[in-house]
Amino acid sequence: MMGAKYLTKATNLAKHIISAVVQEGDTVIDATMGNGNDTLYLRKMVGNTGKVIAFDIQEKAIENTKKLLQSFHMADAVELIHDGHENMDLYVFQEVSAVMFNLGYLPKGDHHIVTKPDTTIIAIEKALSLLKRNGIITIAVYHGHEEGMIEKDQVLAYATTLDQNQFHVLRLDFINQKNNPPFLLVIEKK
Amino acid sequence: MMGAKYLTKATNLAKHIISAVVQEGDTVIDATMGNGNDTLYLRKMVGNTGKVIAFDIQEKAIENTKKLLQSFHMADAVELIHDGHENMDLYVFQEVSAVMFNLGYLPKGDHHIVTKPDTTIIAIEKALSLLKRNGIITIAVYHGHEEGMIEKDQVLAYATTLDQNQFHVLRLDFINQKNNPPFLLVIEKK
Repeated sequence: MMGAKYLTKATNLAKHIISAVVQEGDTVIDATMGNGNDTLYLRKMVGNTGKVIAFDIQEKAIENTKKLLQSFHMADAVELIHDGHENMDLYVFQEVSAVMFNLGYLPKGDHHIVTKPDTTIIAIEKALSLLKRNGIITIAVYHGHEEGMIEKDQVLAYATTLDQNQFHVLRLDFINQKNNPPFLLVIEKK
Repeated sequence: MMGAKYLTKATNLAKHIISAVVQEGDTVIDATMGNGNDTLYLRKMVGNTGKVIAFDIQEKAIENTKKLLQSFHMADAVELIHDGHENMDLYVFQEVSAVMFNLGYLPKGDHHIVTKPDTTIIAIEKALSLLKRNGIITIAVYHGHEEGMIEKDQVLAYATTLDQNQFHVLRLDFINQKNNPPFLLVIEKK
């Protein structure tokens, strides 16, 4: 069977970068809990001395994530917050080393409930202000759906104008794939 | 002092990816020897049981690279070839795990001597055919100079059409930097 080993997909690239940055004991944020894959990944990175704070507006996401964490005996050191990521500053009161975003809809959930440009950009701004030096934000951008196209443009317009003296913004794109594959944005605070 | 730690520049990202792929004992190619930085980096990766085959059309590049390697006592296990990378198939007769390209001109050298789209694309094609499964090509694309703009467009046009069933092509761009920073292309053979 043929398969890529290193350049697999945007979400794997995000995990790879996160694993280079996040240390045991860190506080980190999963801005889009979804089915909890990134929450679990972050929990493994920070260990039980760290803290993961995860957000979602859907009750279903909280349930799925709680079950996933429990099945790995990793529900401790994680706060699952049923609120939008644009309110993260109401829950997080310390610097974080990483924030992960997966834009779009809940996989296997209601595809009509999607992240929205306005709240996404507020959430990214707040994430940047919570980030410590050399902390990283990863944003997997799905733009196959109609609202996703608009969100993509607005998020890119925002990220492109971030001051290069304060932040480095890297865009990672699979340029030879059909059907609008997601791309990844990574922002490091200098 | 403020500085980025993870998202530094295209050439460092290339080295980071190369270090994940290349093993001791591998055969690898530096397609654009220049002042020998990548040649030395590759030599460290493959050790004295591996082989680095490096190409440049400028005598100055061969001299600088030889000196650099000797200063690190690493001139063994390296072949420095005074010929264009478009002829690499005349010198390499085995599969390789990695090929590195730095397009543009020789740093601190004659800025009128630059890589050219036609020969660059022939070299990339030949590199792809020499690559083993899950082998990687990195291409740092400099497009600040006039010929670089044209080369960029042609290399991108070529890379974008590579069959996604055979290759994954990732483009890494610092999207918030001024003055046309180089970007990186990474190609993995599936």
